[in-house]
Amino acid sequence: MHSDRLKRLLESVRDGRAAVDEAMEQLQHLPFEELGFANVDHHRAIRCGFPEVVFCPGKTPEQLAAIFDKLRAAGGNVLATRIEATQVRAVRQVCKEVEHHEVARCITLRQMPAEPSTGTIALVTAGTSDIPVIEEARVTCEIMDQKVESFCDVGVAGIHRLLAHSKALQAARVVVVAAGMEGALASVVGGLVEAPVIAVPTNVGYGASFPGLGPLLTMLNCCAPGVAVVNIDNGFSAGYLASIINRLGG
Amino acid sequence: MHSDRLKRLLESVRDGRAAVDEAMEQLQHLPFEELGFANVDHHRAIRCGFPEVVFCPGKTPEQLAAIFDKLRAAGGNVLATRIEATQVRAVRQVCKEVEHHEVARCITLRQMPAEPSTGTIALVTAGTSDIPVIEEARVTCEIMDQKVESFCDVGVAGIHRLLAHSKALQAARVVVVAAGMEGALASVVGGLVEAPVIAVPTNVGYGASFPGLGPLLTMLNCCAPGVAVVNIDNGFSAGYLASIINRLGG
Amino acid sequence: MHSDRLKRLLESVRDGRAAVDEAMEQLQHLPFEELGFANVDHHRAIRCGFPEVVFCPGKTPEQLAAIFDKLRAAGGNVLATRIEATQVRAVRQVCKEVEHHEVARCITLRQMPAEPSTGTIALVTAGTSDIPVIEEARVTCEIMDQKVESFCDVGVAGIHRLLAHSKALQAARVVVVAAGMEGALASVVGGLVEAPVIAVPTNVGYGASFPGLGPLLTMLNCCAPGVAVVNIDNGFSAGYLASIINRLGG
Amino acid sequence: MHSDRLKRLLESVRDGRAAVDEAMEQLQHLPFEELGFANVDHHRAIRCGFPEVVFCPGKTPEQLAAIFDKLRAAGGNVLATRIEATQVRAVRQVCKEVEHHEVARCITLRQMPAEPSTGTIALVTAGTSDIPVIEEARVTCEIMDQKVESFCDVGVAGIHRLLAHSKALQAARVVVVAAGMEGALASVVGGLVEAPVIAVPTNVGYGASFPGLGPLLTMLNCCAPGVAVVNIDNGFSAGYLASIINRLGG
Amino acid sequence: MHSDRLKRLLESVRDGRAAVDEAMEQLQHLPFEELGFANVDHHRAIRCGFPEVVFCPGKTPEQLAAIFDKLRAAGGNVLATRIEATQVRAVRQVCKEVEHHEVARCITLRQMPAEPSTGTIALVTAGTSDIPVIEEARVTCEIMDQKVESFCDVGVAGIHRLLAHSKALQAARVVVVAAGMEGALASVVGGLVEAPVIAVPTNVGYGASFPGLGPLLTMLNCCAPGVAVVNIDNGFSAGYLASIINRLGG
Amino acid sequence: MHSDRLKRLLESVRDGRAAVDEAMEQLQHLPFEELGFANVDHHRAIRCGFPEVVFCPGKTPEQLAAIFDKLRAAGGNVLATRIEATQVRAVRQVCKEVEHHEVARCITLRQMPAEPSTGTIALVTAGTSDIPVIEEARVTCEIMDQKVESFCDVGVAGIHRLLAHSKALQAARVVVVAAGMEGALASVVGGLVEAPVIAVPTNVGYGASFPGLGPLLTMLNCCAPGVAVVNIDNGFSAGYLASIINRLGG
Amino acid sequence: MHSDRLKRLLESVRDGRAAVDEAMEQLQHLPFEELGFANVDHHRAIRCGFPEVVFCPGKTPEQLAAIFDKLRAAGGNVLATRIEATQVRAVRQVCKEVEHHEVARCITLRQMPAEPSTGTIALVTAGTSDIPVIEEARVTCEIMDQKVESFCDVGVAGIHRLLAHSKALQAARVVVVAAGMEGALASVVGGLVEAPVIAVPTNVGYGASFPGLGPLLTMLNCCAPGVAVVNIDNGFSAGYLASIINRLGG
Amino acid sequence: MHSDRLKRLLESVRDGRAAVDEAMEQLQHLPFEELGFANVDHHRAIRCGFPEVVFCPGKTPEQLAAIFDKLRAAGGNVLATRIEATQVRAVRQVCKEVEHHEVARCITLRQMPAEPSTGTIALVTAGTSDIPVIEEARVTCEIMDQKVESFCDVGVAGIHRLLAHSKALQAARVVVVAAGMEGALASVVGGLVEAPVIAVPTNVGYGASFPGLGPLLTMLNCCAPGVAVVNIDNGFSAGYLASIINRLGG
Repeated sequence: MHSDRLKRLLESVRDGRAAVDEAMEQLQHLPFEELGFANVDHHRAIRCGFPEVVFCPGKTPEQLAAIFDKLRAAGGNVLATRIEATQVRAVRQVCKEVEHHEVARCITLRQMPAEPSTGTIALVTAGTSDIPVIEEARVTCEIMDQKVESFCDVGVAGIHRLLAHSKALQAARVVVVAAGMEGALASVVGGLVEAPVIAVPTNVGYGASFPGLGPLLTMLNCCAPGVAVVNIDNGFSAGYLASIINRLGG
Repeated sequence: MHSDRLKRLLESVRDGRAAVDEAMEQLQHLPFEELGFANVDHHRAIRCGFPEVVFCPGKTPEQLAAIFDKLRAAGGNVLATRIEATQVRAVRQVCKEVEHHEVARCITLRQMPAEPSTGTIALVTAGTSDIPVIEEARVTCEIMDQKVESFCDVGVAGIHRLLAHSKALQAARVVVVAAGMEGALASVVGGLVEAPVIAVPTNVGYGASFPGLGPLLTMLNCCAPGVAVVNIDNGFSAGYLASIINRLGG
Repeated sequence: MHSDRLKRLLESVRDGRAAVDEAMEQLQHLPFEELGFANVDHHRAIRCGFPEVVFCPGKTPEQLAAIFDKLRAAGGNVLATRIEATQVRAVRQVCKEVEHHEVARCITLRQMPAEPSTGTIALVTAGTSDIPVIEEARVTCEIMDQKVESFCDVGVAGIHRLLAHSKALQAARVVVVAAGMEGALASVVGGLVEAPVIAVPTNVGYGASFPGLGPLLTMLNCCAPGVAVVNIDNGFSAGYLASIINRLGG
Repeated sequence: MHSDRLKRLLESVRDGRAAVDEAMEQLQHLPFEELGFANVDHHRAIRCGFPEVVFCPGKTPEQLAAIFDKLRAAGGNVLATRIEATQVRAVRQVCKEVEHHEVARCITLRQMPAEPSTGTIALVTAGTSDIPVIEEARVTCEIMDQKVESFCDVGVAGIHRLLAHSKALQAARVVVVAAGMEGALASVVGGLVEAPVIAVPTNVGYGASFPGLGPLLTMLNCCAPGVAVVNIDNGFSAGYLASIINRLGG
Repeated sequence: MHSDRLKRLLESVRDGRAAVDEAMEQLQHLPFEELGFANVDHHRAIRCGFPEVVFCPGKTPEQLAAIFDKLRAAGGNVLATRIEATQVRAVRQVCKEVEHHEVARCITLRQMPAEPSTGTIALVTAGTSDIPVIEEARVTCEIMDQKVESFCDVGVAGIHRLLAHSKALQAARVVVVAAGMEGALASVVGGLVEAPVIAVPTNVGYGASFPGLGPLLTMLNCCAPGVAVVNIDNGFSAGYLASIINRLGG
Repeated sequence: MHSDRLKRLLESVRDGRAAVDEAMEQLQHLPFEELGFANVDHHRAIRCGFPEVVFCPGKTPEQLAAIFDKLRAAGGNVLATRIEATQVRAVRQVCKEVEHHEVARCITLRQMPAEPSTGTIALVTAGTSDIPVIEEARVTCEIMDQKVESFCDVGVAGIHRLLAHSKALQAARVVVVAAGMEGALASVVGGLVEAPVIAVPTNVGYGASFPGLGPLLTMLNCCAPGVAVVNIDNGFSAGYLASIINRLGG
Repeated sequence: MHSDRLKRLLESVRDGRAAVDEAMEQLQHLPFEELGFANVDHHRAIRCGFPEVVFCPGKTPEQLAAIFDKLRAAGGNVLATRIEATQVRAVRQVCKEVEHHEVARCITLRQMPAEPSTGTIALVTAGTSDIPVIEEARVTCEIMDQKVESFCDVGVAGIHRLLAHSKALQAARVVVVAAGMEGALASVVGGLVEAPVIAVPTNVGYGASFPGLGPLLTMLNCCAPGVAVVNIDNGFSAGYLASIINRLGG
Repeated sequence: MHSDRLKRLLESVRDGRAAVDEAMEQLQHLPFEELGFANVDHHRAIRCGFPEVVFCPGKTPEQLAAIFDKLRAAGGNVLATRIEATQVRAVRQVCKEVEHHEVARCITLRQMPAEPSTGTIALVTAGTSDIPVIEEARVTCEIMDQKVESFCDVGVAGIHRLLAHSKALQAARVVVVAAGMEGALASVVGGLVEAPVIAVPTNVGYGASFPGLGPLLTMLNCCAPGVAVVNIDNGFSAGYLASIINRLGG
């Protein structure tokens, strides 16, 4: 981790080849990373359970294949999000063992043995159209070794559908809620459970929903405390945050 | 109702003083109202139960006093909305019998005997801060002879508070829901009842609520069918619409 | 916390005055807070005239075919909105008797005998481009057994076109107005009739119309009382609401 | 009007003191105004009927008094808009003959004899709250020697009120329409008359009217041709434009 | 123009078959148009020079062909805007004499002899990308018998290009300015000329131009008086308004 | 529809194996759909450490005093947010032991012994103007028995100020970041730490910051995973969420 | 450059054929450009290093080919931005020597010898998706003879990546920062360097990024002084501005 | 500048009291600033001409007085922006030598001898209401030792006013343009000069100007290259950026 240049500098001091003042001067001009800050860089990937994450849009199939070739060699888990069919095919040619999660638009490469979490993350959607977003969250949670339970199509227009699951929801350690249209589900869930709630507005709806803006505002204005919001359709971010929260519980 | 000029014209035809063609020519040049369309003008006020409505902002106390002086003479019911203290005082000097509804910011003058409706209008608010808006709706309904029942502070963050009233809500013929913040209450109520729901977004909230815009979008995107929306804080319009719907039921 | 009725019911069971099955039956009819409320679940579908409603976007043709297969077996009326050609073909293979409403982008399956309403719902559009939206409303009203009358292309730029129908409009029990561009039609109709007016902004227009936002704001700011607004292009919701209002009139 | 420097330069050429090429070189370096373009500057004020216009906000009473002192000496007509009470008092101390138009928030100083226009400008408002804006237009038209006729409180919620004036409106050479709330009046007027219509959205309304934005969009989306829009509350600009259009008719 | 029913009614009065009161009652129930208001309907088309205008989007080629077939028979001029290639072909099969203006996306059918206007309408664009919009204005003006002069690509980033035409612009009786991007051209032109200026924001630009919103706001905020704005890209409306203004000048 | 458990329970009552009171007790513990769920109601307040929370705006001093009088009797901790001076004085008259947190605009009443958390919540602000918001978060955390550490005025314009604290930040179990202006601090902190980050946009800034909208969008678009956002200025919600997350760690 | 007409006029004065006053009168009526102002027109292109710039969208391949044919003859450097493949092919047929910069979507034609700048422009991007924008800036800088150094994918979510380059960034004379998503990079760079920073928001991101609006607001609200913003995705404008600033340094 | 701890650590290495590996380990745990990065902190203030800048809103008069007391002792120049009267008085009590720039709402404290710049910064405003913003820029430039020249009230509605100064503007090395309303001035200036242009939208205007948003969009969409934009009303930032650009020219 420590750079050779830093080591050589200190050795010069030790050996009397460099004065202290001179060394201090030189320390200032060393490249930043060589001062030991480089550990910030890979601090996530080097711990077990934190996957390398690849955001696929804008990358050519060839670029993605090359990235997977390299990451497989590195030996950690990998999650690629928002992947398209041609990209999947390219990756598979160099890395057959990836798993394709079609609805979630993700592929995963598991290379580290799983160490399942103790607590459960509840994944809730208002409608069936929100499922791709919550599936992205689910795949993210699972590659991060989290236990999840899904509750789909329990939107507030038929409140009994949600209430039927209230015990299960109250048992979860973290809850992720994905909803489009008016996004009211997050408020109701926030009032039902004591656990942290991560709300994901989705790009489902039309007209005054203004691609995700409607549920985004709803969720931000949520009266129930204990609810925070991630970007529209960002199932990955919700799953990631839910995972690091759930880990706190051991 | 029919104008003298129209009558005189037809009498001229009858008496042979005007030819038919000539009369037709003249009919075209009569002022519009004299052709009998004037009934559109006062068609609301002349039926019992439809009040004259006065929107107070921008009117001087003197102007308001003069208006009430005249409307009292006309003998119908009167509703004045968004009235301020100095305006109330001015009206009272010429028309002592007005009733002041302080929270609703209205005054009413009842001159027609009430003929109570058969069905009930449920008036629901998410929080206590929404009460002035729902009170404006209540005063409107009552001057229009409607029975109302109020359910305040039953927002979705504690869904059981709302559910505790579900039978009463389901018994109403029309429901008005006023909510600010995220405005999710309208969706949940819309899913609970079969009756028409009039949703009123309120200017309650801060930050991403953007003075009423947040709940407005929420309510427009409402998944439950049977819900329609009026302007932000427009309790009068919601009450008026609920009243004419409730009347349909006899 | 426990209600007397619940206590008395259990005592009847204990004392042999009520059989277990009978008690379970009664439990279902206890006020909500004393009991489960699964009856909320199907409260709409089990009444005649309320169709099952299927929102088609995001569903595969196969999924839709399966849904219709199941709903046909259930025996109620069905309305599917925003359906596309390939979806229609798939449904028709399993359920030949569906009716396709091409302009309205809907299919309906009628399995319950119609019980026509007494009052009429007037369906009004500003221009010919708004017709798909008002047709969705019409199909919705008709599967809900409502009588409708349509008035198309009567926008305010030629006010006499609208006024020519004022008598017919004033005879309707509910009015639905669909308009894009500036959406001013709802205001004028709201001033002409005494009936409730449901306004539907449409995604017709360009430039400062900002896909439906222009008419949406116009309709929300409507000076005439008795007007409420549903989401942009939401002909279904307008038709549904108009139907349940019209039913109130018997 | 022509500058001395330009004259001297040409005299040098005439007298042989400057060569033609040299003069051309120097012409390029003369200050812009000295080339005779300065006539653009005062081209409006020097014609009869075009007033000097002073926008008062942000000016101290002393500054305004000084401006009027100077403009009175110049001898033309003057219009000051958006003036406040303290500013009026200050101007009156140096220029007693100004006329104060309180509702219009303007003062005018007439120093040129009026030459009344032949055609008439119709000034129309939807409600009484729009009157200050239309009054600003009226004062502007009158100081520009235009004949005007006002039609107030003829909004579309009671369409017969407007239709009662349709003959008078159709007789006008230009129409100015000021409306807040939903601003639908401009569309209806645009459909009734053949004359150019200048629409002024006003800051009247609340909620989804978003200080003038609602009627602004409505008016821009106006289906009737022959309608153009000025800035929110800009009665002056509407009156000015209406005046220069009316003048075209002789 | 007058309906038979009205005539028969008056004849009944004349002949004593109907009492005056009875006739007044019946007058109220006659269809609106039969009272002579129908003249509003076609008041534009029946005057020479006013074309029938057809907005093509949303119409099938067959519908358009049928419309032209009928309008040709009516004998007036016709303007069809926003037309596409397949629509043009369909119209040409039934009406060979239409002229296709490709850049303007219009076709015109001239059946009335032209009566050229005396004044000139200046048509100005900021860039070459704004030309389709100004061409729509030009075609509109020409079918309405107006003389036009075009000044293209004279945007403010090179102010001398505009100034080079200032004399010609000042000679025009009306000016139409089409500009996208920042739309500043309208302000500068408004300051250069004394004639009415019709500003058309165009959908040209990217990023913070937000499809036409940028220039729309610029033009509405224009400091120069005498400028009014039509909808984004609405060359037709600008040309129409310019034409009826120019006609005022004889 | 009826569950077996419910049936068995009723049979026990019938057979004398269960007393009525015992049955009623058991009914409460049946899965939700089989029974009432009033227990949801107080699930927060009855656990130690969860305070009663009072949102002060819109409440009269008298109402607040009455609320505190009642809550003191109930014996739990109380937090009142957004309180004003006159409200504080009224509360103090009935409840001297409240603590006033002036910068945070809160008062607290501690009646339960504190049980300090093990982990630490880091509270970070970009500038000194964001301090009232982070103080509201701090007071919330502390009344919920959480250990906090504050890092103020470490905005990204001087990145070294933040980096100087990176070790301390990395040691926290949860991080709350409050920032106005461009709100970029949340992104940088999100990249520095592995803990969950709760971002609070603040109403600090001017111009294109549009009261909190600027930092709100910034935070929602945050590239770093593990960051979620609460409403503008909502320090309470951020503190509450941070507290329930921190508790997960024991 | 000087017009013949101006020359002839001055010669007339010199020769006594025109009086001075007469000449002054005529000067006023000369076309604007002939007064020597035309030099504004081409002032940029005629200096070395300022390229002719062609914005390709909306131009046909043939038009572009013609433009290049003409500009090659003129002999200066040319930069064409936002060019598409078919346009490139058309240009290449008439002008083989153009260089195509595929990622930057530009072609350049260098005809003037380069005179490299002394200072360096640093080009920085937050992510790899921002590269097309920064490449447009790079190509612009290079055709304007500027030295550049690129730093890609150094977004704030991993702040050490940026800090590792802080010395190089601090050595640049101007810095261009392109970032999408939350756009926070500009703020951090603005705090690290003393040089002017040109920020370019990019259309990279989704959801609450609202095509470039998110980073645009972030950059405008930037706390660090010394930062200014150009339009979304406008790499050309950023590169152009950076170039003229860098030239000031010699 | 270097911390004692770093020095002692290196001395331990030199003296053999610490091994190299051990020193490297410790280096990683030293507080960040002690590694010499602290020079980032004050790098601006320690160079002559860079003032300390204090943003006054939200600071108490006492806090401001204390800040000035300390900064005076530090000996550099100081600029305080957006200061109010009571704050000025408090500062003057501890630091009499500050200069108050009332229109600019700034105070300055000059303690370093001025070293005037060679080039000139042109400061241009569209109207007199924009002067406070440009004055803030002027005061900023002057405390940074820059020569400035002001051109006020030269908005585009009277283009000749601007053109009269075109030579002086073209002579400036940097131009700052402040404009509200439609903000078109920046585009025209950008086309007139070759120097970098810093555009400042101002909060001047009403209606569709939406407090600065109108001119902000105009300036961002500016067609002329070489123009960049700072936040609404941010005269300080514009002046600061103009100063560091001007310095590049020597």
